[in-house]
Amino acid sequence: MTIRVVLPGFGNVGRNFCRLLEKRDSLDASGRKILLVGVATRERGSLWSDEGIPLGKLLEAERQTRRVDAVSLPGCKKGIPALDMIREGNYDILAECTSGNLKAMEFEPGFSHMRAALEKRKPVVTSNKAAVALKFWEIDELSRSMETPWHYDGTVVVGAPFLDYARTCLVDAKMRAFEGTLSSTCNYVLDSLIEGASLDQALMDAQRSGMAESDPRLDVEGWDTAAKLMIVAQALFDLPCPDLGSFPVKGIRGLTRAMLSEARQKGGKIRLMARVSCSPEGAELSVGPELLPPTHPLSLLFGPTNGAVILTESLSEICLSGTGNSPRQAAFALLQDIRKIVRMEKR
Amino acid sequence: MTIRVVLPGFGNVGRNFCRLLEKRDSLDASGRKILLVGVATRERGSLWSDEGIPLGKLLEAERQTRRVDAVSLPGCKKGIPALDMIREGNYDILAECTSGNLKAMEFEPGFSHMRAALEKRKPVVTSNKAAVALKFWEIDELSRSMETPWHYDGTVVVGAPFLDYARTCLVDAKMRAFEGTLSSTCNYVLDSLIEGASLDQALMDAQRSGMAESDPRLDVEGWDTAAKLMIVAQALFDLPCPDLGSFPVKGIRGLTRAMLSEARQKGGKIRLMARVSCSPEGAELSVGPELLPPTHPLSLLFGPTNGAVILTESLSEICLSGTGNSPRQAAFALLQDIRKIVRMEKR
Repeated sequence: MTIRVVLPGFGNVGRNFCRLLEKRDSLDASGRKILLVGVATRERGSLWSDEGIPLGKLLEAERQTRRVDAVSLPGCKKGIPALDMIREGNYDILAECTSGNLKAMEFEPGFSHMRAALEKRKPVVTSNKAAVALKFWEIDELSRSMETPWHYDGTVVVGAPFLDYARTCLVDAKMRAFEGTLSSTCNYVLDSLIEGASLDQALMDAQRSGMAESDPRLDVEGWDTAAKLMIVAQALFDLPCPDLGSFPVKGIRGLTRAMLSEARQKGGKIRLMARVSCSPEGAELSVGPELLPPTHPLSLLFGPTNGAVILTESLSEICLSGTGNSPRQAAFALLQDIRKIVRMEKR
Repeated sequence: MTIRVVLPGFGNVGRNFCRLLEKRDSLDASGRKILLVGVATRERGSLWSDEGIPLGKLLEAERQTRRVDAVSLPGCKKGIPALDMIREGNYDILAECTSGNLKAMEFEPGFSHMRAALEKRKPVVTSNKAAVALKFWEIDELSRSMETPWHYDGTVVVGAPFLDYARTCLVDAKMRAFEGTLSSTCNYVLDSLIEGASLDQALMDAQRSGMAESDPRLDVEGWDTAAKLMIVAQALFDLPCPDLGSFPVKGIRGLTRAMLSEARQKGGKIRLMARVSCSPEGAELSVGPELLPPTHPLSLLFGPTNGAVILTESLSEICLSGTGNSPRQAAFALLQDIRKIVRMEKR
């Protein structure tokens, strides 16, 4: 039995997803295999093969030419737009890996892709933060009405499976507040500034390693963190979609090496923090740099590592962190989400 | 709809379980209520009521007289042994809260209670560490063959739901090693020694707060930690039951205030660590005090708080901790395990 996957978006996460698939013979103990039948990009071509696209060839062709359609493959089709693949193709699961832009309120083409798949009752997994942040409830309602699952664990704290944990293990403990460092790029940049690097240098390094957004200003200005925070607020705290502008979003641009060093000398650390807190009066969100005291559980995290602290009513404070926060881990989250879908189907 | 529960064992966890039930109108949004129909102790009497035991009365009577049968209740039965209740009573779930003793290889009466319930196809939840550590696979096989669930999340790292997290979210990431501080009593005692308390003083405080075992030597000598480690090894790493004596179990008795202070001055911390590591040659377990460097994620935990670090193949290192580690949290874990059973039944 194979699971036929369509993949719009071939950036860092999409490529790493293909690398993960290449290494694995099968999805799990059931022996089911994932077959990539379609890949589509906005400006680098598209490729469809009913028999499956050979992953090694695809990765190599894209590496050499930057195009996904530079693969010579008998019987394949080139140039089909993503939306047509999703609407008319023969596939089982959509893996939506395009990117959006929260600051510009840009949730397309990701949102249309997901909607088109769910309307055909095709399950969706995604790493598209802006589309999930801005269209969470619309996608969720469509998923319910079509009785078709969608998962988005590839969007937040991918170094440690987090959203799933909170949803399945913490909901009954009654979550009251959340705080987290959610941008690996910001963590990395802040640590590099202390070591004497310039902001531009640090950002270039972060981009080279694949962790930064294609436009790294989104990281530095706090928009990437804000997108993740909006997902947490909707998915875990059941809040309506927060309006952009209704909560503070500050970045790390104004921080100097002197400020960061002073914090470190006192044993603490400056981090870009994302917060949700709930009270009877309502919920408050914020994104901004904060000085964490040495006793704060997130002050111990180094380099790109992200972490989250959840305050619950029944179990007090729970802290979760995972080393690193790479596109490979986001790709692993997509694969985990596909496993969840396959397991639910087997029941 | 009510869920009828039998509770053998009325120590710290059992009492806190009743307090939690007393506060809640219903188990969850489904509106189902938990009815305590039987409570049994080894030396403090037993009580059965088909209509349910009033929790406030039970807690108050036990507080005043130390006996659970000192409740005046029309139509109740007194003096029925736990095993007879489990074999012949009309109930839905067994909440096994007696205690055992790993050092003495004492897994009774807990093991017989769980076996009797599963043989009647009655689901089991338990906080009995010694019985689960020593009889894990026997209980697990019986549970499978009778197609009846058992859960034991009240045994390890109760401050943060941990076993369930590892089983559901981390299994596919391939766990390779585990390290954790698993004894809240040891954490608390080590921190108290630094502050100048004597071992006996610190232990008495820990007992008064309800976190220490009834025989606190089991904590101090590492046996409580060893029991939890054996559960982790079997439940998460699929290892056969480790023989006592096949792995080192060292306690914290030899540690002096000077040693602990020296570690703290260097920014680190001494903690009683439990470890599992897997290699192609096999798995190794150990329990013993270790000096954690200031960069170790568990070195930041204060007071009784426990934490665990899991090394995985696909996601590198994941760290989870929850503030505190109290009998109330163990009781909450039992309640969560009951919820899991009820949810699975509804499907």
